[in-house]
Amino acid sequence: MNQEIFTINNVWMMVATILVFIMHLGFAALECGLTRAKNTINILFKNTIIPALGLLTYAFIGFNLMYPGDVFSGGFLGLSGLGLSLPEGWDTSAYSEGYTFFTDFIFQAMFAATAATIVSGAVAERIKLGPFLFFSLIYVGICYPIVGMWKWGGGFLDTLSTPFYDFAGSTIVHSVGGWGALVGAYLLGPRIGKFTERGMNAIPGHNIPMAVIGVFLLWFGWFGFNGGSVLSADPGTVSLVFVTTSIAGAAGAFGALIASYLKFKSYDITMVLNGILAGLVGITAGADQMAVWESAVIGLIGGALVVFAVVFFDRLKVDDPVGAISVHLVGGIWGTLAVGIFGDLASFSQFISQLIGVAAVGVFCLVSSWILFYGMKKTVGIRVHEQEEVEGLDISEHSMRAYPDFATKE
Amino acid sequence: MNQEIFTINNVWMMVATILVFIMHLGFAALECGLTRAKNTINILFKNTIIPALGLLTYAFIGFNLMYPGDVFSGGFLGLSGLGLSLPEGWDTSAYSEGYTFFTDFIFQAMFAATAATIVSGAVAERIKLGPFLFFSLIYVGICYPIVGMWKWGGGFLDTLSTPFYDFAGSTIVHSVGGWGALVGAYLLGPRIGKFTERGMNAIPGHNIPMAVIGVFLLWFGWFGFNGGSVLSADPGTVSLVFVTTSIAGAAGAFGALIASYLKFKSYDITMVLNGILAGLVGITAGADQMAVWESAVIGLIGGALVVFAVVFFDRLKVDDPVGAISVHLVGGIWGTLAVGIFGDLASFSQFISQLIGVAAVGVFCLVSSWILFYGMKKTVGIRVHEQEEVEGLDISEHSMRAYPDFATKE
Amino acid sequence: MNQEIFTINNVWMMVATILVFIMHLGFAALECGLTRAKNTINILFKNTIIPALGLLTYAFIGFNLMYPGDVFSGGFLGLSGLGLSLPEGWDTSAYSEGYTFFTDFIFQAMFAATAATIVSGAVAERIKLGPFLFFSLIYVGICYPIVGMWKWGGGFLDTLSTPFYDFAGSTIVHSVGGWGALVGAYLLGPRIGKFTERGMNAIPGHNIPMAVIGVFLLWFGWFGFNGGSVLSADPGTVSLVFVTTSIAGAAGAFGALIASYLKFKSYDITMVLNGILAGLVGITAGADQMAVWESAVIGLIGGALVVFAVVFFDRLKVDDPVGAISVHLVGGIWGTLAVGIFGDLASFSQFISQLIGVAAVGVFCLVSSWILFYGMKKTVGIRVHEQEEVEGLDISEHSMRAYPDFATKE
Repeated sequence: MNQEIFTINNVWMMVATILVFIMHLGFAALECGLTRAKNTINILFKNTIIPALGLLTYAFIGFNLMYPGDVFSGGFLGLSGLGLSLPEGWDTSAYSEGYTFFTDFIFQAMFAATAATIVSGAVAERIKLGPFLFFSLIYVGICYPIVGMWKWGGGFLDTLSTPFYDFAGSTIVHSVGGWGALVGAYLLGPRIGKFTERGMNAIPGHNIPMAVIGVFLLWFGWFGFNGGSVLSADPGTVSLVFVTTSIAGAAGAFGALIASYLKFKSYDITMVLNGILAGLVGITAGADQMAVWESAVIGLIGGALVVFAVVFFDRLKVDDPVGAISVHLVGGIWGTLAVGIFGDLASFSQFISQLIGVAAVGVFCLVSSWILFYGMKKTVGIRVHEQEEVEGLDISEHSMRAYPDFATKE
Repeated sequence: MNQEIFTINNVWMMVATILVFIMHLGFAALECGLTRAKNTINILFKNTIIPALGLLTYAFIGFNLMYPGDVFSGGFLGLSGLGLSLPEGWDTSAYSEGYTFFTDFIFQAMFAATAATIVSGAVAERIKLGPFLFFSLIYVGICYPIVGMWKWGGGFLDTLSTPFYDFAGSTIVHSVGGWGALVGAYLLGPRIGKFTERGMNAIPGHNIPMAVIGVFLLWFGWFGFNGGSVLSADPGTVSLVFVTTSIAGAAGAFGALIASYLKFKSYDITMVLNGILAGLVGITAGADQMAVWESAVIGLIGGALVVFAVVFFDRLKVDDPVGAISVHLVGGIWGTLAVGIFGDLASFSQFISQLIGVAAVGVFCLVSSWILFYGMKKTVGIRVHEQEEVEGLDISEHSMRAYPDFATKE
Repeated sequence: MNQEIFTINNVWMMVATILVFIMHLGFAALECGLTRAKNTINILFKNTIIPALGLLTYAFIGFNLMYPGDVFSGGFLGLSGLGLSLPEGWDTSAYSEGYTFFTDFIFQAMFAATAATIVSGAVAERIKLGPFLFFSLIYVGICYPIVGMWKWGGGFLDTLSTPFYDFAGSTIVHSVGGWGALVGAYLLGPRIGKFTERGMNAIPGHNIPMAVIGVFLLWFGWFGFNGGSVLSADPGTVSLVFVTTSIAGAAGAFGALIASYLKFKSYDITMVLNGILAGLVGITAGADQMAVWESAVIGLIGGALVVFAVVFFDRLKVDDPVGAISVHLVGGIWGTLAVGIFGDLASFSQFISQLIGVAAVGVFCLVSSWILFYGMKKTVGIRVHEQEEVEGLDISEHSMRAYPDFATKE
């Protein structure tokens, strides 16, 4: 392959890396905006530390777990060493036609922390900081790369007779976070005041402009998340992915707008925001496989699903302050299955493979996050004291306020 | 043409696409910051829905209206079909030397919603949501692409003996939004309390940091808006455009700073912010035609003009909460005419062509937005009730507050 | 060299330019978030005007001072003219293999304002606007490019027998800002209420979400700051720089987290944020020279240093509201010296050259900023009146409030 195309590919992959990086600010802003002012420092602290944690653990062990190569290749688990050791020809097309070794690492590393940032939203406003960071360390450093290997590292989901397909991670990334979010929110129990005898109380987010910033930055970053998952700058595929991604996000907004208007008779901006994200999560598994109209349908359904999912989890009394489970788990499952229904791969056997992938990842993530959260719950405890929760985690965990100059209503 | 240059061009155009996308967050943040806390959800809702609407309508009809090709080519109106149908060789340089079909579509689609996001600022804090969304649907989906075709689709403005010149859309994009903003703000009338017997009252924006975020993101995105309008990665032209764009924005800040200091004897940050935008709007028509000093002059004058325009529209009692008309209409006209005065194309005949373009677009946009807004005013009504306006649109239209944890002064 | 590689390089340099541009929003958001609500307009005003000022002065004189070429080449001072005059072959690889003349200019111009935005944080909440803008004009327009020439323009630091090494500007950019910040903060004296008889009072920032936005945007931009300093799209070097930069920032977060937990027994988000920045500043001098583990060590130490530096400057009663001196001066010195200790250049003679560079730049910046600030202090005055400071600079300097709709505690 010629040096020019290699260099172009690598430039695009680096741009995609930067875009995925800024998604961490997107998550931080979104989760901050959709929770209460008294827990703002806490949520921001977590969403600042997790990307840093993700980069370091991914360099130390995650990348080697996810791409073990011939060492224990395929199957369920492999590890090619610790730390980053440069293969020969690491900065040439001998390593890959699309990127250098370091570009490969850093692009993948930016994804890693996502698994925990998704969880952080669902467990917000009541989880203890230490246990959450320990969960993140293991979930991001060990669990996520193992699941990733199953497909992207050439593991058993990639070697099914009809291989499981997950282009950029509806299952491999988003549902991994979503399952952890579900377990965490369930084991923690709902926030004080969320479910009372008189029914469910909405606890509104304290800063909607921040939530809007978050969603737009996530959408912005998704051009790198999906666009970079082409693993080259191939003009046709990347530009197709841009269109399917954009259209699915846009349709997700309308799916949620319509569903929430029919259900609640109001124009609910948080539903629209989550609808956009659900559309984006939904297209992620098949962004390179769909026609434009199919991406619109996938987004529309994803956006509508998020509204029903939020209501559903509320009924189950699983308290998810930001809607992360509805967006990333429900949206992720929907998007993964959609690859069996729409697009170039649609077939019954593909649908079955998609189901297998969803189930295998689900079981692994449910079990591992259960072990982590339940183990801590029964030992060190995972929930702050009632008084700390009422006062807010910013004071109890950080001795600071996010907005000390403003008068609050609390 | 060789595949390497085609791929590079396409990468640049995709980066430019992403940059234009994030301008929608820029508009959302700016307009949110410059209006009142009680209308924040409403303005953010509109600025979130409009880009989604723009993407979908542009895919369905806008792109075909704007680039009808041989179907009814040239002239005033053409339509090449509905939806996106892939031409042969869509992902090769046979389609275009600078981009694939999908890159072409998505870059243009990101521009489309701008026409309505500009309007949303001028009509903020008193327009009904439903009518505004209907206006946006038609204005973005139909009106904007028709005007765009006149120049960029090979229409009559492009075939004048001295062709009208509008590099990236001072007229085709910004003034289209500006004319709609003028009509909307005029037909709605001023906000309650803006003009009283004792004179004009400034109604300050509620969150200046958001406004600053907005302007910087718009400037950031403008590198894609203008830089992508080169339609290739040609090193000389794109880098020239970067310099003229940056210098005009910077000079716009000083133009507004000087004019507002002379006029009001204060350092008014909102004027400086709008001055930057006016400088950027001003250079947009001729960003590839100007020398560095000319871009500085254009920006300086654009920035100063915005100050006088704000005062002028206040005198006319046209209430534009964010200064959108001054920035996008006045700045857009100035920039368009400047192509006849400065730069490589400067000539009397060019100036006349620029005037023709400004006037033709102005008449079409005034008439079409008048029909839309006036038609709705006389039927469903376009303005919320007095009590709703006083209470804030967040409650009356969305039953939510943007900052429920904070004590407000209202 | 072939046109394809030239075009790719130029695309990457333009992307890097845009990324460095958005760092100015990062500085604005960070400094706004870490100061008080009553001084928000003022800090945003400065951070909006300075980039504009930087672009214009760099076009007028800075670029020619920094890269004087043969005119008075080398040594301590040179000037190749005023304004931008296009050399022959400016848009071809005859000018440079990595970029056109205009790309060269605009990439460098985006760096220029940084010197003053760093200062603005340290002198915040008490400096008069006019004197600060005058300082910025001279410091950005004259002092920064002179220092820059010493190394990047081929001056005496570049021609030492073992040349001083500063890849992207730990000394040339960050410490230049840091020295100015130190002098400014010292000559102004502390804010009212910061140091009282009973000891030091923390004056908390008013909007931590803004600070988080600022740090993430700075990190985001750093991929262009460091990645663009490769001056080409060379896949191996740029991707290495991405990894070292990311790892150093991540390690900086943990360095500050550990140090601040040990010292204060709390999870202090502002320390973590400044730790990230210190890690990034620290790696900047040698981002292309370090192994991954070395970048982690440099970041870790940089992050820890920031905690001790903040305490140290508090003891000296140098009041730096945002920690700019600790981040940019201490971090910059550390990163510069680290090039003599770690990485491919590590040697005793390199360490001495690094010391010489740090000292030479330090002396020049201390003297020049002392002359500027002290001269103004003894004539026009640099500090607002006590009553203005108590009331807040937004009212006294701008007659506006940043958040007029909210009830504040002041």
